Amino acid sequence: MIQHAPRDPDYATRVRASFERQLFMATLGARLVRVEPGEVDLELPVRTELTQQHGFLHAGALASVADSACGYAALSLMPPGAAVLSVEFKINLLAPAAGDHVLAKGRVIRAGKTVTVCWGEVLAFDGTTERLVATMVGTMMTVEGRGLAD
Amino acid sequence: MIQHAPRDPDYATRVRASFERQLFMATLGARLVRVEPGEVDLELPVRTELTQQHGFLHAGALASVADSACGYAALSLMPPGAAVLSVEFKINLLAPAAGDHVLAKGRVIRAGKTVTVCWGEVLAFDGTTERLVATMVGTMMTVEGRGLAD
Amino acid sequence: MIQHAPRDPDYATRVRASFERQLFMATLGARLVRVEPGEVDLELPVRTELTQQHGFLHAGALASVADSACGYAALSLMPPGAAVLSVEFKINLLAPAAGDHVLAKGRVIRAGKTVTVCWGEVLAFDGTTERLVATMVGTMMTVEGRGLAD
Amino acid sequence: MIQHAPRDPDYATRVRASFERQLFMATLGARLVRVEPGEVDLELPVRTELTQQHGFLHAGALASVADSACGYAALSLMPPGAAVLSVEFKINLLAPAAGDHVLAKGRVIRAGKTVTVCWGEVLAFDGTTERLVATMVGTMMTVEGRGLAD
Repeated sequence: MIQHAPRDPDYATRVRASFERQLFMATLGARLVRVEPGEVDLELPVRTELTQQHGFLHAGALASVADSACGYAALSLMPPGAAVLSVEFKINLLAPAAGDHVLAKGRVIRAGKTVTVCWGEVLAFDGTTERLVATMVGTMMTVEGRGLAD
Repeated sequence: MIQHAPRDPDYATRVRASFERQLFMATLGARLVRVEPGEVDLELPVRTELTQQHGFLHAGALASVADSACGYAALSLMPPGAAVLSVEFKINLLAPAAGDHVLAKGRVIRAGKTVTVCWGEVLAFDGTTERLVATMVGTMMTVEGRGLAD
Repeated sequence: MIQHAPRDPDYATRVRASFERQLFMATLGARLVRVEPGEVDLELPVRTELTQQHGFLHAGALASVADSACGYAALSLMPPGAAVLSVEFKINLLAPAAGDHVLAKGRVIRAGKTVTVCWGEVLAFDGTTERLVATMVGTMMTVEGRGLAD
Repeated sequence: MIQHAPRDPDYATRVRASFERQLFMATLGARLVRVEPGEVDLELPVRTELTQQHGFLHAGALASVADSACGYAALSLMPPGAAVLSVEFKINLLAPAAGDHVLAKGRVIRAGKTVTVCWGEVLAFDGTTERLVATMVGTMMTVEGRGLAD
């Protein structure tokens, strides 16, 4: 994988504090389980409150955790004081998502001054089996000086 | 707009029943407000439980309602007994989503035998003002004979 | 449709001059047929040199003209001296592209300071019939002060 | 990487023969340089005929070779007699593409009965330096019994 150097030594604290402010993540039940430069993982327990009509996790729930994982992977490489906004993302649903929990991994492919491109994967875990259920590509923007918190 | 003829006369009942089974929509607080052939609208009240770190609606919440609106627009044109699955979608976030509620509109661009392509828009309403906050393009698949409910 | 006001009164001249410098457009045989604020159309005659293995226009040829139409629709709204770069785009292929020629239409959905989002359509014409063969959504970036021509 | 087992022992011959029929690849000057199960690489020499207004390779030229690499990676895993069609793809442009030549790599992420999802990368080579200039995610469809050649 690509090695990234953080521009903010406090990147992990900053990502964790911002994640705590994403009330939607608490509503979903997602937890931040890994923060490294350019790499963030979220874990989401499977619950019936998050399902679509066939009893699988809703594509939107998968997209939500993958987007946050990608966004925070991007934020982990941004300079102090900058905020991150999602410009766009695309998700491919590869297999029905069920099991115990899913893990959403966000990884920075390219960190530019304004635009950061991220790759996301969502893996579903059921006991000892693991399955790739979705992939994401997203474009994130560095926003400075607009009075937004991280 | 494109005029579509439904292949199932009971399309509206079928869409409404399937929507009721999407427990994630109830978790979000989304309501089905319009079902026409190839056209479905969902309404989502803005609540702090759905926000990201800056207090706007989370991109994943917008993606969730836009995906369901697109998926049900696709299902409304499918033959009886067929189920709909999201293959992939892309969302562009155009402006921060805040206000009283958002309306997610799903429209079928092309309904094929296997693949249906949909266009989605999310509008945010604040008192009397209205703003386009997101657009979606999604690919939906008709699934028959796999024992999936609609 | 959305009405856009150009920030550069010479937008049309600028778009035409830039299009002339896109040597790839000449290689494809594409012509600029319409330039309005936020709206650009390109015409591409169908030739066997542009086909894929089944004799239809290659998806890449369609993507090329749709991307240029979108990029120039974006440029038509940018201030004097700014250049346009494609950040990303997504194309859906709706039907095989054949016939006499195709028309690629680029339309600005939202013009921001840095990021412009465009919608593209490719229509195939065969005698008097017309068919929507592809749709695009693309993100374009305004680049200033990097020494790039328009 | 994921290991794939081809369902057609003659997959390489079939991919090569189909590539020869893609006249657009000859127009661009692209060559097929690697065919393995689920993995196809194309090489494209940089030429001024393929450039956009700033002298870099046009995004559409990059999309064209990435789409063909992805499509043939998908075809390499399809059963005898099946044809491949691009349903949709998304490309992110990460850096200006210049140099001697580019290499487009197509890799299958998931091969389903009807839908195959591929990942593509385009690398630009300039002397001894190498740079990732674009990434693609594409959805390909297996088409059987419609009288299409591979």
